[in-house]
Amino acid sequence: MKRTLYDLAGEDPACRFSPFCWRSRLALAHKGLDADVVPWRFTERDRLGFSGQDRVPVLVDGERVVADSWAIACWLEDRYPDRPSLFDGDGGRAVSRFVNVWADSELHPQVARMVVADIPSLLAPADRAYFHESREQRFGMALERVSADRAERVESFRRELLHPLRTMLGQQPWLGGEAPVYADYIVFGAFQWARVGSAFELLEKDDPVAMWRERVLDLHGGLARATPARSAAAATASAAAA
Amino acid sequence: MKRTLYDLAGEDPACRFSPFCWRSRLALAHKGLDADVVPWRFTERDRLGFSGQDRVPVLVDGERVVADSWAIACWLEDRYPDRPSLFDGDGGRAVSRFVNVWADSELHPQVARMVVADIPSLLAPADRAYFHESREQRFGMALERVSADRAERVESFRRELLHPLRTMLGQQPWLGGEAPVYADYIVFGAFQWARVGSAFELLEKDDPVAMWRERVLDLHGGLARATPARSAAAATASAAAA
Repeated sequence: MKRTLYDLAGEDPACRFSPFCWRSRLALAHKGLDADVVPWRFTERDRLGFSGQDRVPVLVDGERVVADSWAIACWLEDRYPDRPSLFDGDGGRAVSRFVNVWADSELHPQVARMVVADIPSLLAPADRAYFHESREQRFGMALERVSADRAERVESFRRELLHPLRTMLGQQPWLGGEAPVYADYIVFGAFQWARVGSAFELLEKDDPVAMWRERVLDLHGGLARATPARSAAAATASAAAA
Repeated sequence: MKRTLYDLAGEDPACRFSPFCWRSRLALAHKGLDADVVPWRFTERDRLGFSGQDRVPVLVDGERVVADSWAIACWLEDRYPDRPSLFDGDGGRAVSRFVNVWADSELHPQVARMVVADIPSLLAPADRAYFHESREQRFGMALERVSADRAERVESFRRELLHPLRTMLGQQPWLGGEAPVYADYIVFGAFQWARVGSAFELLEKDDPVAMWRERVLDLHGGLARATPARSAAAATASAAAA
């Protein structure tokens, strides 16, 4: 059966940095399910018309169309119950929603502020204009200003926002306990977004959160690691060209 | 088999306000397990000597002594697997740890700042001196000053800190999904601490978080509701006497 995941891409179609799409890619890999992960760009709304909305990830699984990363995880869990579980029980599914809303409303806004200025230089020209306009409207200022104080901001991000995650990872190796579950992918998505989209480093090497991030990068044959981290040199050259 | 839970009490032995002890009391009720819930006061460290540490909750379950609310929940889940589950699966247990560390490190400090000044007037005289000294050392200022700005502070507490919880409760009635689990009790403990310990209201009535709090108060025959909320009149009289 044919399975397709629409995934946000930069001008280089191999550049995949959407945190929500990474949740779904890792969920598919966790289930051991193949999919064509096709590049999609912000301004290609027509191509998603069939899904009834205009954002990725969108999964087409045979006849079924599923939009939204949480809905995709639930679909995969229910449709493929004999594959490795994403939630490890109904309680895991219910409580993972807390992690999902925490990531969306606490983690993502802080990561966004630190990396958003680096994103336009990755994008195809039409997307670049769209992104600049929509994000500057959202933040109410030029993107360069949004990210300007990140060297200071990252200190409280590490110390305060990541404190619960770090504490937990001192008690168990994964959010899922002894093995990764979807909650790990939810949180990892934000770090992969920053890793692929920006050369700015969110974590110190000896942070237990950074060590966990390395473990997720190794999962499923190194799926997430296969998309390269952005290098400082490339980011500078690309920004100059943009 | 005899089962005893040591629970923090005020001068009035019926006044039970420890957020951690409430986690354990509701966990016992969820499992349908009886226990003598005996009052203990901060300065009665000798009485806990048998447990190898000096804080409550401590559960004595037959021959077994278990300290720390998380350890108690895990003990009950493993020892009584045929009773209603606190975690609803291994994934629920693992991911509930995130809720546990989030509550301890994000929710509790903010609630503490808003209610701490009201606690001494509830305490037995020896505890009152201990509490004042230890908490003023922790906060680095007089307790009255710690809580002085709570009328403003509660606004950001509601709007920001509770945002993920509120969003989640818009998607499902309990942290556990269709039914409460231990994650609900973890978070509820903080609200019960404020409810019993202070007349200061953390929540607006029409907040989905307040409606969920009412639902938890109704659980297990209204166990948590049976400990009265502190009234503004009593708090004032008691503070004046203290």
